[in-house]
Amino acid sequence: MIRVGIVGYGNLGKGVELAIQNAPDIQLLALFTRRKPNQVETIYNTPVFHLDDIEDWKEKIDVLILCGGSASDLPEMTPNLAQNFNVVDSFDNHSQIPEHFNRVDAMAQKGNRIALISGGWDPGLFSLNRLFGEAILPQGKSYTFWGKGVSQGHSDAIRRVPGVRLAKQYTIPNEEALETVRQGQNPTLSTSDKHLRDCYVVLEQNADPHEVEIAIKSMPNYFADYKTTVHFIDEAEFNNKHTSMAHGGYVFRTAHTGFSQEHQQVIEYHIKLDSNPEFTGSVLVAYARAIYKMHRQGSIGCKTVLDVPPGLLSEKSPETLRASLL
Amino acid sequence: MIRVGIVGYGNLGKGVELAIQNAPDIQLLALFTRRKPNQVETIYNTPVFHLDDIEDWKEKIDVLILCGGSASDLPEMTPNLAQNFNVVDSFDNHSQIPEHFNRVDAMAQKGNRIALISGGWDPGLFSLNRLFGEAILPQGKSYTFWGKGVSQGHSDAIRRVPGVRLAKQYTIPNEEALETVRQGQNPTLSTSDKHLRDCYVVLEQNADPHEVEIAIKSMPNYFADYKTTVHFIDEAEFNNKHTSMAHGGYVFRTAHTGFSQEHQQVIEYHIKLDSNPEFTGSVLVAYARAIYKMHRQGSIGCKTVLDVPPGLLSEKSPETLRASLL
Repeated sequence: MIRVGIVGYGNLGKGVELAIQNAPDIQLLALFTRRKPNQVETIYNTPVFHLDDIEDWKEKIDVLILCGGSASDLPEMTPNLAQNFNVVDSFDNHSQIPEHFNRVDAMAQKGNRIALISGGWDPGLFSLNRLFGEAILPQGKSYTFWGKGVSQGHSDAIRRVPGVRLAKQYTIPNEEALETVRQGQNPTLSTSDKHLRDCYVVLEQNADPHEVEIAIKSMPNYFADYKTTVHFIDEAEFNNKHTSMAHGGYVFRTAHTGFSQEHQQVIEYHIKLDSNPEFTGSVLVAYARAIYKMHRQGSIGCKTVLDVPPGLLSEKSPETLRASLL
Repeated sequence: MIRVGIVGYGNLGKGVELAIQNAPDIQLLALFTRRKPNQVETIYNTPVFHLDDIEDWKEKIDVLILCGGSASDLPEMTPNLAQNFNVVDSFDNHSQIPEHFNRVDAMAQKGNRIALISGGWDPGLFSLNRLFGEAILPQGKSYTFWGKGVSQGHSDAIRRVPGVRLAKQYTIPNEEALETVRQGQNPTLSTSDKHLRDCYVVLEQNADPHEVEIAIKSMPNYFADYKTTVHFIDEAEFNNKHTSMAHGGYVFRTAHTGFSQEHQQVIEYHIKLDSNPEFTGSVLVAYARAIYKMHRQGSIGCKTVLDVPPGLLSEKSPETLRASLL
């Protein structure tokens, strides 16, 4: 049995706890939190401990799955824990991944531990599909579409507009743009060509909806370049209809092969998730298993999904996988 | 530069020759054939040698890409060559992969060489997607749909019917079944539920189309359980319209997550190829690069796509890949 601990118990931590129920080779030993342990109630009565006491578990836990946020938790937490534990995180601040990698690698190397950063679907499975696409069809073009799903960053941006009390922003793939890609037309598309932005806003009392709408739609970077729709709703509707954690997206690779480039080749990868954190948690659990095996084979330091032989994600033996999946 | 040779120059060998043009780190040194070398004309004037002389190239070639057929060529060729060369093949006789693996592994181990078998898309990329699907969502269901594309085995079966001179059989995904999977309904589907079979037949003179149609449609295993359509055409139309090497297919993984299994999760992988051999050739070239790197890192014996860290497929450095793809 692979002995696993979870650090952090928000939506992602719960997703990991749920995913481990489907992993017969993984035993969830403990959950670590910065809150008071006796105030945290877990779904499956996982024992809860304070994060300050985690060093006591150095020899008892094979892999820690880190479920903090990328903005402020993981940049500190992952390198700090990587010296004493094998760790998996879902660090998703794309531009800072190289720096995060280097910091985690130094600490994991120091402690002879292994760490996998940026697990999940983007970064993660989408990165893998971009990799396979460009390695196999180097002369082609890649396209990533996100959604439909809530963008936390864009929702936060709307909430900073004066007069806005609550807001959710859905990123939606532009179906027309998506279809031109699927048909292999190799269009040139900016992020704003590929996505629509759908905003649901609860106003403060006496706020002017017209002014708020203009403020949102003219916001540079976030909305100005996009086809943006703003819906004003009341708080009851907001709480009823906009709690979903659904998300998804597409990765395409399109290219032409042949002596005269006469053959169109299209690869499409699509995920449609009712629960983003439960799916991401499931990905992290599979990668926890994989790095446990890599560590036992002598591998140390920081890794990403690009470094992990896919077969290690499965609890099944290589023989069984070859006989059943190839 | 990675020095590569191609063995066999049918459609797949040509696909590999074409794909190498897009690989700046790979040099195609030689093509080996059982035909008379001076009678083989290559697309890019690749030097051609007789297969009998291949041992002379032991030290000059880093990876051989084997482009023979799975029925009779590769079962002998891959193990024989794996003792003296690093090799990649596209062995696609699914049920015999474990045996092929063992034979190739023994020879590669003996010669301290590395071999990758069953590269391509199915087995290959589809196998990887089945693996990712079941490792991440172990409680779910997987579905593979093939087509639209020619099935060589089914075309051969039709040609064995008395009165048939030429035949092509297209395997077509059943759109209705596919849609129930895409919607996450987790249906139970047999291969015949998932596919339609579309047959184009040129008759011998005086053959009775009605009898031929009955003979085809009632053929056990191949057609009896399927919705089969038979079209009779003349030879000119056959030669004009049925030379395409297009193919493709879908791999789905669908599952429910959550405490009450309330969240539907769907992964869909889809490829649509105008040229099956050119795409398969492109996959083999990327895996040739990967096993070359694995061999330099000290890895020997037989591998499959399940064993290869994805990043090795790219000519780019791990740093560049992390910065650009994650």
